[in-house]
Amino acid sequence: MRALLLAGFLGLVFVLVLTPVLIWLFKKVGWGQVIRVDGPNTHLIKRGTPSMGGIAIVISAIAGYFLGKAFNSEAPTLSALLVIFMMVGLGIVGFLDDYLKVRKQNSAGLPGVFKILGQFVVAVAFALLAISNADANGLTPASTEVSIFRDTGIDLMALAPQSWGQVGIWIGTAVFLFWIFLLVTSASNGVNLTDGLDGLATGALIMSFGAFAVIGFWKFNQACDLTNIAPNCYETRDPLDLAVIAASIVGALIGFLWFNTSPAQIFMGDSGSLGLGGALAALAILSQTEILLLLVGGLYAIEAGSVILQRGVYKFTRLVTGKPRRIILMSPLHHHFEEKGWNEITVVVRFWIICGLLVLAGIGLFYVEWIYGSVA
Amino acid sequence: MRALLLAGFLGLVFVLVLTPVLIWLFKKVGWGQVIRVDGPNTHLIKRGTPSMGGIAIVISAIAGYFLGKAFNSEAPTLSALLVIFMMVGLGIVGFLDDYLKVRKQNSAGLPGVFKILGQFVVAVAFALLAISNADANGLTPASTEVSIFRDTGIDLMALAPQSWGQVGIWIGTAVFLFWIFLLVTSASNGVNLTDGLDGLATGALIMSFGAFAVIGFWKFNQACDLTNIAPNCYETRDPLDLAVIAASIVGALIGFLWFNTSPAQIFMGDSGSLGLGGALAALAILSQTEILLLLVGGLYAIEAGSVILQRGVYKFTRLVTGKPRRIILMSPLHHHFEEKGWNEITVVVRFWIICGLLVLAGIGLFYVEWIYGSVA
Repeated sequence: MRALLLAGFLGLVFVLVLTPVLIWLFKKVGWGQVIRVDGPNTHLIKRGTPSMGGIAIVISAIAGYFLGKAFNSEAPTLSALLVIFMMVGLGIVGFLDDYLKVRKQNSAGLPGVFKILGQFVVAVAFALLAISNADANGLTPASTEVSIFRDTGIDLMALAPQSWGQVGIWIGTAVFLFWIFLLVTSASNGVNLTDGLDGLATGALIMSFGAFAVIGFWKFNQACDLTNIAPNCYETRDPLDLAVIAASIVGALIGFLWFNTSPAQIFMGDSGSLGLGGALAALAILSQTEILLLLVGGLYAIEAGSVILQRGVYKFTRLVTGKPRRIILMSPLHHHFEEKGWNEITVVVRFWIICGLLVLAGIGLFYVEWIYGSVA
Repeated sequence: MRALLLAGFLGLVFVLVLTPVLIWLFKKVGWGQVIRVDGPNTHLIKRGTPSMGGIAIVISAIAGYFLGKAFNSEAPTLSALLVIFMMVGLGIVGFLDDYLKVRKQNSAGLPGVFKILGQFVVAVAFALLAISNADANGLTPASTEVSIFRDTGIDLMALAPQSWGQVGIWIGTAVFLFWIFLLVTSASNGVNLTDGLDGLATGALIMSFGAFAVIGFWKFNQACDLTNIAPNCYETRDPLDLAVIAASIVGALIGFLWFNTSPAQIFMGDSGSLGLGGALAALAILSQTEILLLLVGGLYAIEAGSVILQRGVYKFTRLVTGKPRRIILMSPLHHHFEEKGWNEITVVVRFWIICGLLVLAGIGLFYVEWIYGSVA
């Protein structure tokens, strides 16, 4: 617990120092934000605000984690290292995107296919590392079972009948890798789409990562061990350390929000949103709460859903009737409410409220499942 | 726990229905906000926004609590009823203030001496009720000891030497009642002063009451009973029900923030800020975390401190040098930053960040004391 508090505190301190340095540096070299041409007109004044603030968040969270562990004389665990691997891996993909945007001064950035490819490579490497390093108790950081509050018993590796032999193993492996890729790409692109108004994604992510700090901490307190073999105990690897890395990210995000809130002096950029979305997926996978991510990261799911639905309906109606239709004024959803006349800050605070309620519902269900053994 | 989740959810639902009704009603009868003449000029556009939204918060929180308990077939406890007593008592004082303001259309309201008198009467009645109704285990809702994370052993009733007899008891009683009055008046006036920017007090109170939901819940899980006589167990009356009433207030505040955030459609007014500040003090007293309120309600302490310091220095320098001096541009502190050129919303989010960090520090220390038996 001391490591958790320390990591969060240090993540906060680092980001409070690093962010102003980045703002100064990016302004000096002229790396300002390029605003998408099809966004709301009111956003044109945001041109020139430094992006790539995610670099400060990621570095501060990592420094907070390692120093918090070191001060407490604890060794880093593989689980936390895997979260960092995902955050840095997708952070680099996001950085390339950000970098191309500011260099070419247009909002195209990295071509979509390279983004997806990057997410795929990082997700697959993460998945393979996470199921192949058992500790002394035989626990690997991730399991191949689908999880909600804990593993459900639905083992993706064992989907094919055993009689299929090697082919069945290939199919199982492919399904498992696809599942991890799906979680990673959904979370990272969801956060990416949410990051469109000053402070919106940062504030929401504070709550989402806060939830994983609580979940990891609770799973640590209720872990199955020699003194606790209750039927509701948890078989999760390194739960406390997942809480520690989540706390250091929360600390870094809180400090970043100071500069990122309206009017933003810096944006997190894709460096931040892809890396942090990936870290969120990694925490859900390693803490065995994959499906629960639908609530803990519910806001990003809603934002991504609004884009998918809008595009889908547009293309479908164009194909069928020749007259394309839109279901909302502009996607992602936050732009819809801006177009409806809400102030940017009204949208932000109300979306924070929705995110907070979804996160609370997630933690509530998680706790109810622990008490009653099910949520029914 | 089911009662807690239900109470929070119902508090939210009630306030989402009640607040728009109040906005409509107050607009219809013309009860708009009167803006203080010495505030920032930018606030003049807020004239006419309905005030007294606190009525919706208080009613929704109470309804959420009672229905949550009823659905769960639990009887209300004296401790929660005392929190409600304080919230309603000071809410009525605040309502009188709000009412006089809108009727007379000036920002004077209830004369200060009546406000203090009202706070005094409610605080004393609360204190006497809280130390005179022992349950089957001999526990009263409040104790006469000063508490930080739990009672400290410093018994205010026993300050005078025993040999003083009846006089010593009178002195002890007077000191205890003054202590409770001090906590109540500090918290309620602190929240009152903080409530000067759209959403500021509402958002901060969500975190402060959230902390008491966590503290009450933790004290319930770690209560001293037949199965738990650990040295760090808690001797607090009705801890879970304190968490339930805190959760119903949190639910009501989250829903209220929807309408109260920038640009505010309604303010909580003194009906809200005095009542909720009082409820905060009541929760600190009954959960035996009185001094911890300095962190959990740290933002209100800072805001109140800025006013006291500003006025003190002003009067002192006027007296001594004849030239009055101000230490900040305008008090309370949030106006100082507005005058410095920060946007209203920037001040609000940054003050939320400070409040959140203070609340997290409070919960962190509370937990550390539980683990190690002290925070050193």
